Amino acid sequence: MNRTDQPEVAIIMGSQSDWPTMKNAADTLEALGVSYDARIVSAHRTPDRLVEFSKTAKENGFKVVIAGAGGAAHLPGMAASMTPLPVFGVPIESRALKGQDSLLSIVQMPAGIPVGTLAIGRAGAVNAALMAAAVLALNNPEIAANLDDWREKQSQAVAEKPVNPEE
Amino acid sequence: MNRTDQPEVAIIMGSQSDWPTMKNAADTLEALGVSYDARIVSAHRTPDRLVEFSKTAKENGFKVVIAGAGGAAHLPGMAASMTPLPVFGVPIESRALKGQDSLLSIVQMPAGIPVGTLAIGRAGAVNAALMAAAVLALNNPEIAANLDDWREKQSQAVAEKPVNPEE
Amino acid sequence: MNRTDQPEVAIIMGSQSDWPTMKNAADTLEALGVSYDARIVSAHRTPDRLVEFSKTAKENGFKVVIAGAGGAAHLPGMAASMTPLPVFGVPIESRALKGQDSLLSIVQMPAGIPVGTLAIGRAGAVNAALMAAAVLALNNPEIAANLDDWREKQSQAVAEKPVNPEE
Amino acid sequence: MNRTDQPEVAIIMGSQSDWPTMKNAADTLEALGVSYDARIVSAHRTPDRLVEFSKTAKENGFKVVIAGAGGAAHLPGMAASMTPLPVFGVPIESRALKGQDSLLSIVQMPAGIPVGTLAIGRAGAVNAALMAAAVLALNNPEIAANLDDWREKQSQAVAEKPVNPEE
Amino acid sequence: MNRTDQPEVAIIMGSQSDWPTMKNAADTLEALGVSYDARIVSAHRTPDRLVEFSKTAKENGFKVVIAGAGGAAHLPGMAASMTPLPVFGVPIESRALKGQDSLLSIVQMPAGIPVGTLAIGRAGAVNAALMAAAVLALNNPEIAANLDDWREKQSQAVAEKPVNPEE
Amino acid sequence: MNRTDQPEVAIIMGSQSDWPTMKNAADTLEALGVSYDARIVSAHRTPDRLVEFSKTAKENGFKVVIAGAGGAAHLPGMAASMTPLPVFGVPIESRALKGQDSLLSIVQMPAGIPVGTLAIGRAGAVNAALMAAAVLALNNPEIAANLDDWREKQSQAVAEKPVNPEE
Amino acid sequence: MNRTDQPEVAIIMGSQSDWPTMKNAADTLEALGVSYDARIVSAHRTPDRLVEFSKTAKENGFKVVIAGAGGAAHLPGMAASMTPLPVFGVPIESRALKGQDSLLSIVQMPAGIPVGTLAIGRAGAVNAALMAAAVLALNNPEIAANLDDWREKQSQAVAEKPVNPEE
Amino acid sequence: MNRTDQPEVAIIMGSQSDWPTMKNAADTLEALGVSYDARIVSAHRTPDRLVEFSKTAKENGFKVVIAGAGGAAHLPGMAASMTPLPVFGVPIESRALKGQDSLLSIVQMPAGIPVGTLAIGRAGAVNAALMAAAVLALNNPEIAANLDDWREKQSQAVAEKPVNPEE
Repeated sequence: MNRTDQPEVAIIMGSQSDWPTMKNAADTLEALGVSYDARIVSAHRTPDRLVEFSKTAKENGFKVVIAGAGGAAHLPGMAASMTPLPVFGVPIESRALKGQDSLLSIVQMPAGIPVGTLAIGRAGAVNAALMAAAVLALNNPEIAANLDDWREKQSQAVAEKPVNPEE
Repeated sequence: MNRTDQPEVAIIMGSQSDWPTMKNAADTLEALGVSYDARIVSAHRTPDRLVEFSKTAKENGFKVVIAGAGGAAHLPGMAASMTPLPVFGVPIESRALKGQDSLLSIVQMPAGIPVGTLAIGRAGAVNAALMAAAVLALNNPEIAANLDDWREKQSQAVAEKPVNPEE
Repeated sequence: MNRTDQPEVAIIMGSQSDWPTMKNAADTLEALGVSYDARIVSAHRTPDRLVEFSKTAKENGFKVVIAGAGGAAHLPGMAASMTPLPVFGVPIESRALKGQDSLLSIVQMPAGIPVGTLAIGRAGAVNAALMAAAVLALNNPEIAANLDDWREKQSQAVAEKPVNPEE
Repeated sequence: MNRTDQPEVAIIMGSQSDWPTMKNAADTLEALGVSYDARIVSAHRTPDRLVEFSKTAKENGFKVVIAGAGGAAHLPGMAASMTPLPVFGVPIESRALKGQDSLLSIVQMPAGIPVGTLAIGRAGAVNAALMAAAVLALNNPEIAANLDDWREKQSQAVAEKPVNPEE
Repeated sequence: MNRTDQPEVAIIMGSQSDWPTMKNAADTLEALGVSYDARIVSAHRTPDRLVEFSKTAKENGFKVVIAGAGGAAHLPGMAASMTPLPVFGVPIESRALKGQDSLLSIVQMPAGIPVGTLAIGRAGAVNAALMAAAVLALNNPEIAANLDDWREKQSQAVAEKPVNPEE
Repeated sequence: MNRTDQPEVAIIMGSQSDWPTMKNAADTLEALGVSYDARIVSAHRTPDRLVEFSKTAKENGFKVVIAGAGGAAHLPGMAASMTPLPVFGVPIESRALKGQDSLLSIVQMPAGIPVGTLAIGRAGAVNAALMAAAVLALNNPEIAANLDDWREKQSQAVAEKPVNPEE
Repeated sequence: MNRTDQPEVAIIMGSQSDWPTMKNAADTLEALGVSYDARIVSAHRTPDRLVEFSKTAKENGFKVVIAGAGGAAHLPGMAASMTPLPVFGVPIESRALKGQDSLLSIVQMPAGIPVGTLAIGRAGAVNAALMAAAVLALNNPEIAANLDDWREKQSQAVAEKPVNPEE
Repeated sequence: MNRTDQPEVAIIMGSQSDWPTMKNAADTLEALGVSYDARIVSAHRTPDRLVEFSKTAKENGFKVVIAGAGGAAHLPGMAASMTPLPVFGVPIESRALKGQDSLLSIVQMPAGIPVGTLAIGRAGAVNAALMAAAVLALNNPEIAANLDDWREKQSQAVAEKPVNPEE
C-alpha cells in the first residue's frame, strides 16, 4: 500500500483502531501523488517509539508529520515537541465525548510548540493530507498541479441542484 | 513595523480588535526572521477585500497565510477556499463564549478545504507563526536555523525549580 | 419540484447531504404557497458560486434567503455579508458534535452582519420557512392568510390527551 | 427617546437589566430611520402583559418584534407563539453560563413556532435591529437606502492596516 | 388509565412524543396511590390552553404540577408563572443536544418564578412523581406510608453482588 | 437571625462560603413568613453530621429541606437519600466551571431519589425558598396568602418602560 | 469469580447496570494477581450500606477502593469522605450526557476529600485497576512484577503498521 | 523549602506559572509530614527532561508522582507512560476554557496508562497531596496518623452555623 522510497509524509496514529479514520489521509495523499509512510506510534503504550520516531523524523527524510489520536490525545503534541517538522493533528472521534476531548487535547497547545489541528474524524484526516500537500506544493510543482486539479475537480463536482433522496 | 519587500507570510485578521492577539504572531515571525505583512480583512464587513486578497495571495508572493478571527469566525476557512496556500487559523477569545465559538467555527471545516488550527488566543497566535516558520524552513536553511535556535532557547529557558511568587 | 417563475425565497445549502434536512423548508414553503428555488452553494468548495449568488440574489428577485450548513458553517454568514436581503440560517446536525459547531458558526455573527438562526436540524428547516413566510406575509395578504391557517391547524392538531404508544 | 407615532418595531425585554444590551438594538434602529417602541415584558413575572402584548402586536401596527431575554429565556418563543409577526430573539449574556442558557432557550424552538435568533449580547442586539430593517426594507425604499448606506459605511470603516494599541 | 375524580397531580407535556417519557411519572404516581390527570399542553402551539390550564389549576383542585418538555422547553416555567402551585419540570431528551437544551431552558429560571427540575429523561419523570408524592405526603398519611414502602422496597431490591451479564 | 421554635424549613449548605448565596433563600423565607433553620452540613467533611441531620429531619419537625452545594455537589442528593421530605437543591456557582459541575451533580439524580433543582446561584436560592413556600402553602393559608402577595408585588414591580442607565 | 480470602481491593458500584463497565476493573485486577471483592453499594438507594461499607473498609482489610457510578455520581466521593483509604472513581457513561455528568460529579471534589478519577467508561475501569495495582506494588514485589509484565506486554502488542480493516 | 533527603513524592509541573496552584500540593504534603521534591518539567518544551525524570523516578526513590499541567495537558499522562509509579494529575485552570481542556487532556487516558485525576485548580492540588498521603499511609503508620489527624481537624473545623459576611 505504501510507497517506500523516500516518503515525504509520515502518518502516525495512536492505535490500530484509528486507522479507519487515518486511512482517509493516506488515500488522499495517494490521490495527490504524495508519498507517505503510515505507522502506529502510541504516545502512552510505546513512548520509546514516540521519542525514536520524533527525533529522527527529519533526518529520515520526512517533511511533514500527520498524527491522529483520540481521547487524551497526546501523540501530535508530543511529536511536535521533538521535531521541527510541521505537525498536523487529527482528533479521532472518541466514544463517550465524540472527539471533544481529542480536539481540546490536540489544539490547546501552549505557546512554543504548535500543532496545526484539523476537524474531528474523517474530514480532519482528509484535510490533514491536503494541508501536507499544500505545504509540499510550495516547492514541488507537480504536487502543486495535482492539488490544483484536485480542488478544481472538487468544485466542479458540486451539483447545482439537490436531488431528492428517494429519486 | 512590517518588512515590505516580498513578505512570505500574510497575517490577516477580522478586525482591529484582533490585533492585540495577532501581534503575537507578528512578533514571533519577526524573532524568527520571517517577513510578513499584516492587514485587516473582514470576511463579513469587507467580503470583496477577502476575495481579492485570497485569490491573489499566491501570485502576490505569499507562501503562508495566518488568519485570526473570533465568534462566527469565517475568515480562515473562506480564505482557504480561495487560495491553495496553507492557511493557519487562530481562534480569537470571544467575550461570552471565550473562544469556543471561534475554535469550532475555524477547526470544523468540511473535507476538502483545510485550516490548520491553533489554540485559542495568544498561544495560538505565537504558534501560528511557528507553524509558518516550520513550513518555510523546509526550503529555507536560514529560517530552519532560526527556528532551531528559538526552540533550543525555549527549552533552556525552562527553570528546574519553581520560584515562590512572594520571593 | 420547484416553482420556477419569480421564486420569492432562495434555499441554499452547503452540500447534497444537507438536502434531507433542508427539504423540510421546501415542503413547508410549498404548503404555505410560497415560491422558492433550492440549490447547492458550497461556501468552501464553490466560493465563486457563493459570491455570484449572493451579490445577485436581490436583483434576481429573491426576497428572503434560507441557508443551511453544517460543521464550520460559513454559508449563511457569508451570504449575509453580500446581500441586503434577510438571511435565515439552519444549523445542520453534524456527525461528531451534533450541530453544536453548526449552531455557533451560524449564530455568533459579529455586529453588522446578521443571520436569523433557527434550531438545529429538521425543526430549524421548517421554522426557517415559517420565518420567511412571516416576513413575506407583511406585504402579501394571501401568504398571511395561509400562514394564519397553517398556525391554526397546527394548534387544533394538538390532542388533549396523550395516547399510549402500545395502544 | 422613542418615536411614538406608528412605531414599526417592538423591542421587548424581560427586565430592566436587559436594557443596556437591548439599547443597542434601539440605537441601531434609530440610525436606520426605523421607528420603534421599547418596553419591559417579563414572560415569568408579567405573563398577562406578555399575552396582551403578543396578541395585539399585529393589530397595533407593529411589523417586527425584537425580544431579548436571559437564562431560561422564554420571552421570544412565547411571543412568537401568540403573534404571526416575525420575532427576532437576542440571548442576553447571563451571569453563570454566559448566555449559553439564553441561546439554547431561544434558538431550540420546536418546528412550528420560529424565532430568528441572533448572537449572544450586544452584537445580537445590533443585528436584531439590522434584521428588522432588512425585513422592512423589502417594502420601504427609504429604509432600504438607509440600510445600504449603513452597510457601505461599515465596509469603508474597516481599516486596511492594524494599529498598535500603544501607538 | 387516569383516575378522574379529584386528581391531585396534573401531568402536562408539550407533545404526544413526550408521553413515552412522561408515562413513567404517571406509572410511579399510580404505584404510590396518587391520583393524577395527564394532558398535552403545548406552550408554543396551544398558548391559550397553557394560560387556561395554568390559571385554573389551583381552583380545579390540583395540588402539584408536573411538566415535561424538550428543546426550548418553556412549558414548566410558563405554567409556574401563572399558578402558585409547586411545579416540577422534566427535561425531555432532545434529538441533537440530548436534553442539554431542555435542562437549561427549564432549570435556569430567574429569581421569582421557580421550577423544581429533575434529571433529563425517564429518571426525571419517575423522580417528578416521587417529588409530588413527597409534597403530598406532608399532609396525607396514606401517601406518606406508600412512599415509605416504595423507598424501603427500592433499598431492599439492591442486590449485594453484581451478576455477570452472561450468567 | 433564625426563628428558633419549630422551624418548617431546614437550609443546609456545604460550607460557610455558600452562605452569601444561600442567605438569599433565608431572606426570602423570612419575607414570606416561613420559619427556618440554617446550618452547615458538609457531605464530605462531616458525613456523620449529614447522616444525623438527614435521618432526623422529619422527626425534628422539618417539612422541607433546601440544600446548597458547589462543585461535586453531593449534599442535596445524599440528604434526599436519607429523608422522605422534599429536598430542593441549589447549585452554587463554582470558580472554574461556573456551577455547571454543581448543576449536573445535583440534578442528574437516578430514578428513585429526587432532588428538585433550581437555577445556579442567587436566583436558585431565592427560588428554592419560593418552592418551599409553595409546598407549605398547600396546607397553610397564611403562607399561601403571603406567597400570593409576594408574587403580586413582584408583577407590579415590573416597570413598563426601560430606563436608560445614565439617566 | 472473586477471590475471597483477604481481598485487597474493594470494587463498589452504584447499580447492577454498572457491572458490564466495572467488570473490566475486576478482570484487570485478576490479570495482575490482585485480589478483590465486588459489590453493589448505591449511595442513594442504600445509604446505610454505603456508611457501613466505607467506615469498615480499612479495618476489613481493604487497601484500595474502586468506585464506579453514573449521572449524579456520589458514590466515590461519599466513600472517600468516610474512609482514609485511597479511592479511585470511574465515571460510568450515562445515557443522555454520555458520562459528562458522571465525570464532573466525581472529579470536582472540594479540597479535603480526594477521589482519583479515571476516564469515562471501560478505559476508566481498566485504569482504576492499574492504579490500584500501582499503589499496591509499592509494597508488594509480586504485584510490581506482574504490573511490569503487563505493561511490557502491552507495549509489545502495539503493531508497527496499521492493518486495513478489509484485509 | 523542600526536604531533600529521600523525598517520597515528586511534584512536577509544566511551567513556573503552575506553581501558585501546585504550591498547595506542596504545602499540604508539608502539613502531613510527607517529603517531596518540586520541579518544572515541561512535556512540550523539555521533552528530554520529561523522559529522564519519568524513567528514573522509581529508581530515584520516589513513590508517588503529582503532575500539574494546563491546556493540552500532556505531562501527567506522558509521565505515567514511562513510570510504574502511581501518577496523580492536577488540571490547571486555563485562561480561555477555565481548565476544561486541562481536565479532559488529563483524565481521558486510554486503557493501559492511568492517571488519577483531581479537581481543576487549587482543590485538585490539595487533594493530589491527600491522595499521595493516603497511598503512602498504607505502609507508613506515621503518615497514616498524620492523615487521620488532618481529616479529623478538618471535620471539626466545620462550623455548625453560617456567619453573615457583614458581621
